[in-house]
Amino acid sequence: MKIIIIGATGTMGTYLSAALENEHEVVRVGSDSGDFHVNITSTESIELFFKQVGKFDALISTAGPTYVGPWSKMDDVAFRKGVEGKMMGQINLVLIGQNYINPKGSFTLITGALTNEPQKNFANASAANGAVEGFVRGAAIELENGIRINAVSPTVIENSPQYFPYFPGEIPTTMRQLEFMFRKSVFGTVTGHVITP
Amino acid sequence: MKIIIIGATGTMGTYLSAALENEHEVVRVGSDSGDFHVNITSTESIELFFKQVGKFDALISTAGPTYVGPWSKMDDVAFRKGVEGKMMGQINLVLIGQNYINPKGSFTLITGALTNEPQKNFANASAANGAVEGFVRGAAIELENGIRINAVSPTVIENSPQYFPYFPGEIPTTMRQLEFMFRKSVFGTVTGHVITP
Ligand SMILES: NC(=O)c1ccc[n+]([C@@H]2O[C@H](COP(=O)([O-])OP(=O)(O)OC[C@H]3O[C@@H](n4cnc5c(N)ncnc54)[C@H](OP(=O)(O)O)[C@@H]3O)[C@@H](O)[C@H]2O)c1
Ligand SMILES: NC(=O)c1ccc[n+]([C@@H]2O[C@H](COP(=O)([O-])OP(=O)(O)OC[C@H]3O[C@@H](n4cnc5c(N)ncnc54)[C@H](OP(=O)(O)O)[C@@H]3O)[C@@H](O)[C@H]2O)c1
Repeated sequence: MKIIIIGATGTMGTYLSAALENEHEVVRVGSDSGDFHVNITSTESIELFFKQVGKFDALISTAGPTYVGPWSKMDDVAFRKGVEGKMMGQINLVLIGQNYINPKGSFTLITGALTNEPQKNFANASAANGAVEGFVRGAAIELENGIRINAVSPTVIENSPQYFPYFPGEIPTTMRQLEFMFRKSVFGTVTGHVITP
Repeated sequence: MKIIIIGATGTMGTYLSAALENEHEVVRVGSDSGDFHVNITSTESIELFFKQVGKFDALISTAGPTYVGPWSKMDDVAFRKGVEGKMMGQINLVLIGQNYINPKGSFTLITGALTNEPQKNFANASAANGAVEGFVRGAAIELENGIRINAVSPTVIENSPQYFPYFPGEIPTTMRQLEFMFRKSVFGTVTGHVITP
């Protein structure tokens, strides 16, 4: 299978690339790193990227910038970081990528527990996650040719201890759990699901 | 109580205004109708509106434009209708309105069953709803001075029979149920909730 990983050079993406590359052709992508570059906040960049990379079987996204910081600084401008990044960035990967993916292919987008379990400083991520999860359910009944779409929604992950202080009492998702959540979406049969640990 | 209803001239807003105006001071607002005008897709218009209308106790929004139509026409540009309208329009009412609302006041935003129960033609609304619901949960733990925030999420409403064909098998929310969902948010104590029929 040819699997594109957008965000392949990040914490999640590095682990997933290594986990999948022995069995599959993994295309590692970042905005400024990896085998190919794409800026998901630009539809032109996304179009150009898919033209370059060609047909594929699965797209995994672990790229989703959001505004993290004090509520007092959260205005329309700050909010756009998550709107253009984690939300429209990932949604546009699907709206455009559906024209390049092979029949029976799959899209797997990243959200996170913040959708339902808010934390201070993260309201922008809660909104972006909620949007992506709503979109995943809506898109699953529209996509044709057997193409599936799911979201993976971990809690704070094991390999991101720098975030633990922001998530008191939240049990971290292990990297193995994270890998299996993505495997379920890519190699399984579900569509329109939000996969949790 | 001084209650602002954004979208007061629409199907929901007309009913709610009539239901609340005997007991409360209701300020009816539309983009081009009502006692005051505001265009929720513009932060400048929202700022100006709150300066004009002054302090208030509750804001209800039943204004939330989205793109409704075939998936084949759903691109980044079409998607922006819901992003700027139902999503950022309502979110900016809160981010800006928090500076004008009285202590212990409340914000009540509109979403809908499409968040979790998708229908063809409505993926943009599913995403916008999900964003607003995620935001409501995130904002509820950040807002100060006892200010609360909730979302009201009805199924297709009784007074919108033109939409029934798009929602096969969905039991319509009665106008009385809708009114009581808003009453629970405005006059009750819950915050960060998504209120369903
Ligand atoms: N870490 C956690 O504990 C955790 C838990 C739940 C959910 N999440 C969510 O999971 C996602 C990934 O988290 P992570 O910790 O793995 O992030 P990360 O380490 O910061 O990695 C982000 C990856 O995305 C790429 N990227 C960033 N902006 C991009 C853009 N505009 N276009 C294309 N690629 C872009 C980066 O590549 P470049 O450096 O080349 O731009 C990098 O490969 C985030 O959305 C986060 O909210 C994280
Ligand atoms: N109707 C249903 O069955 C149903 C079910 C579930 C959820 N919903 C959601 O509930 C919301 C309201 O539905 P509805 O049927 O009552 O809508 P509606 O009859 O179309 O009324 C919309 C109201 O919003 C105002 N409005 C529209 N755009 C605006 C803008 N940019 N700035 C300020 N005000 C604006 C309109 O005033 P002007 O005409 O002056 O612009 C009008 O008062 C929508 O978000 C819809 O998705 C509806």
